[in-house]
Amino acid sequence: MRKIFSAVLFLFTITLLQAQNPDSVFIKKIADEILTSGKAYDNLHELTKKIGGRLAGSPQMVKAEQWGMRMMKESGAEKAWMQQCMVPHWVRGGTDQASFKLNNKDVFEKLDVVALGNSIGTGKKGIVAQVIKVDSFEELEKRKDEIKDKIVFYNYKFNDTYVNTFLSYRDAGQYRGQGPSRAAKYGAKAVIVRSMSHAVDNNPHTGSTRYDSAYEKIPAVAIGLRDADRLSDQVQKTTVTVKMQTNGHFLPDTIGHNIIGELIGTEFPDQYITIGGHLDSWDNCEGAHDDGAGCVQTIEILRAFKAIGYQPRHTIRFVLFANEENGLRGGNKYAEEATAKNEKHILALESDAGGFTPRALGFNGSDEQFQKFLSWKELIAPYGCTEFNKGGGGADIGPLNKALKTPMASLNPDSQRYFDIHHSRSDVFEAVNKRELELGAVNMAALVYLVDKYGL
Amino acid sequence: MRKIFSAVLFLFTITLLQAQNPDSVFIKKIADEILTSGKAYDNLHELTKKIGGRLAGSPQMVKAEQWGMRMMKESGAEKAWMQQCMVPHWVRGGTDQASFKLNNKDVFEKLDVVALGNSIGTGKKGIVAQVIKVDSFEELEKRKDEIKDKIVFYNYKFNDTYVNTFLSYRDAGQYRGQGPSRAAKYGAKAVIVRSMSHAVDNNPHTGSTRYDSAYEKIPAVAIGLRDADRLSDQVQKTTVTVKMQTNGHFLPDTIGHNIIGELIGTEFPDQYITIGGHLDSWDNCEGAHDDGAGCVQTIEILRAFKAIGYQPRHTIRFVLFANEENGLRGGNKYAEEATAKNEKHILALESDAGGFTPRALGFNGSDEQFQKFLSWKELIAPYGCTEFNKGGGGADIGPLNKALKTPMASLNPDSQRYFDIHHSRSDVFEAVNKRELELGAVNMAALVYLVDKYGL
Repeated sequence: MRKIFSAVLFLFTITLLQAQNPDSVFIKKIADEILTSGKAYDNLHELTKKIGGRLAGSPQMVKAEQWGMRMMKESGAEKAWMQQCMVPHWVRGGTDQASFKLNNKDVFEKLDVVALGNSIGTGKKGIVAQVIKVDSFEELEKRKDEIKDKIVFYNYKFNDTYVNTFLSYRDAGQYRGQGPSRAAKYGAKAVIVRSMSHAVDNNPHTGSTRYDSAYEKIPAVAIGLRDADRLSDQVQKTTVTVKMQTNGHFLPDTIGHNIIGELIGTEFPDQYITIGGHLDSWDNCEGAHDDGAGCVQTIEILRAFKAIGYQPRHTIRFVLFANEENGLRGGNKYAEEATAKNEKHILALESDAGGFTPRALGFNGSDEQFQKFLSWKELIAPYGCTEFNKGGGGADIGPLNKALKTPMASLNPDSQRYFDIHHSRSDVFEAVNKRELELGAVNMAALVYLVDKYGL
Repeated sequence: MRKIFSAVLFLFTITLLQAQNPDSVFIKKIADEILTSGKAYDNLHELTKKIGGRLAGSPQMVKAEQWGMRMMKESGAEKAWMQQCMVPHWVRGGTDQASFKLNNKDVFEKLDVVALGNSIGTGKKGIVAQVIKVDSFEELEKRKDEIKDKIVFYNYKFNDTYVNTFLSYRDAGQYRGQGPSRAAKYGAKAVIVRSMSHAVDNNPHTGSTRYDSAYEKIPAVAIGLRDADRLSDQVQKTTVTVKMQTNGHFLPDTIGHNIIGELIGTEFPDQYITIGGHLDSWDNCEGAHDDGAGCVQTIEILRAFKAIGYQPRHTIRFVLFANEENGLRGGNKYAEEATAKNEKHILALESDAGGFTPRALGFNGSDEQFQKFLSWKELIAPYGCTEFNKGGGGADIGPLNKALKTPMASLNPDSQRYFDIHHSRSDVFEAVNKRELELGAVNMAALVYLVDKYGL
């Protein structure tokens, strides 16, 4: 790349024209503040490198909560508090291990595995059993008589043909969620799941599994893609035995908190706009994209509003939700308290799809509200969200939407890299780009400003 | 991220609806081929890891040309040839070195520098001189009487407030291009340029400088951002001496080649659509994004068209251009020969802005042609290029546009990460994401298919 194209001149002209509209002027002021003086990247560094993975109930959760409170105060919250909720306390309990052996050999070869979140351990003796590979639930059902006492290996592949990778995740995710219980129904001893990813590496990806109480709970691990292909090849050739040892178990529920900061509305102090991400992450990674990014973007919007002296008409709540990954207790608690206090919430906006370059905003509300939302597209598009889609929200704000019919929105950044790193050890600070992260905050801030100014 | 949003369902519905239109069906077929069986990523691995940096005139250039010919043949070109052109042969000639010393100290501290492309060396003795920092050309002019015998340090900052980073590059790039001669005009001994980047690391970024023949040619290096800030701080406090040693020089022009493959048109074999990227890169990196990506995307479109049995109506030329970085001799040669042979070219499309997630297609042609181009937006947008912009093209296809008025287009991927790595040692294979790279090829292929089917 050497020459400058006329496209650039064209964009430059657009930029100048947009500077005429007062809302554009204000949004540019927010953007300039975030892009030149942003703290989101440094804050994310601190969260990921000094605290790291922070699963509900872990000591790191407590540290992250303290960090969150400090961030709220340092970033200018006029009020900040910890909203208590009980959270599940699943622990991995040790290093997950698995290896496989071919029928005609004596040597076990190592597999890179991670136990699924919420899964039970194998016990200290581990489990040794023959592997049966199924490529889908359909195949499982067809071969249900062969399942007993075996380890079921779900080799369902992430669909590469969906451009939006969340479609592939929805498609494949059911094997992680339902796979163990559906295999247990037919007497399986344990489950191995092909990771929900199209990464080029071999890192295994965890995430919640959900046991069906009708069946025995059996241990379950995820396996990286190269190991999955290797195992799949071998199973097709010969009898393969896997031994695995995991140690997952639940301790009693413990105390966790949503971390909440507020800028108090000048005109409507008792009407709320909520912005948030979730503070917890899986324990096998730094939770940089999932969802450290959403947390530091939330905090950055608070910081930037204060830095430019913005006084919102409505009260804006900046929320770091507890326990999204394996319980959603934070989101439920937030909705529960809002309902009990009969609060009026006009919008909830979540960032929980990674700190990647912003592309779209999703919106979930009435048709009339959606039209109003659409009318702001030209103002926000120059900062990356060129698509305004129907449908959106987030796990943590879902309960508020359900309880109070609060319209909800989501930042939908580019999805191509998300499932390379999602819930795996590669979800680290280094996988986040500073400007992409900051631009996400810019687009969110712009939407919040417009909702605050014009209502919904 | 745990729950699936309704936005995903909405996108799923769109995907299904689009599958009804025959052009959509065909484009999806291309996309599925590239996303499931694509070779672009593996090909890029080979180019970057087995050959590496491949500046015009270097032994790696020759290897890359051979690689390109093999790729064309293996990917199904019905005809492939090397189009000869003379290329400049600048060599770095050794390791670029620089260090600085404060007035009151004896110790030199190392600076991480890279000589600018096409710059002359300092000679073996190097240059030792006091540094004068200027933040802009305006400051240079104001302080022109202080320049003589000094090393001018241009500390002009990359503008973080432009969302499209190519605007920042256009803005700052003049210091690399004109800086040395403008300083030489006032008697400077050498120049240090702050890298055109907003990276968080300290890697220096090279790129061409252009000497004005009216003034003495003086040596010039680029410096990483952290070193630039460090040097800037010191210069403001005390007198700073820099010593630098570079070895750049030109050898006689040598023979290089454009690598051209063709699929011959069934209806209009003598009408051409050109797709391309440039094969050369700077010597201090692997040239993965710049422009290995454009090369392997070009080859991938050829491979995918053959794989699905597409027989184009017009002849499609797949071109890996020579010497974009410091001479443009390949692009000039291509246009020259097309003119001499009175060829009819209906479109030239270039990918030379990195292998990042596709966002836009730029187009440079008549208003009527632009309207036709615009009419295809809904067909291509589902694959990433949701913006269809006026203005576009590329350095290598510019001469064809100038000579024959050939409409030209460019793939404009997301620009946020490009100048983190551009012309620096961090432009390596690992910085490229497989799916982002592939999706770029999908969007280009779709445009070529539509132009081939409907003309322009």
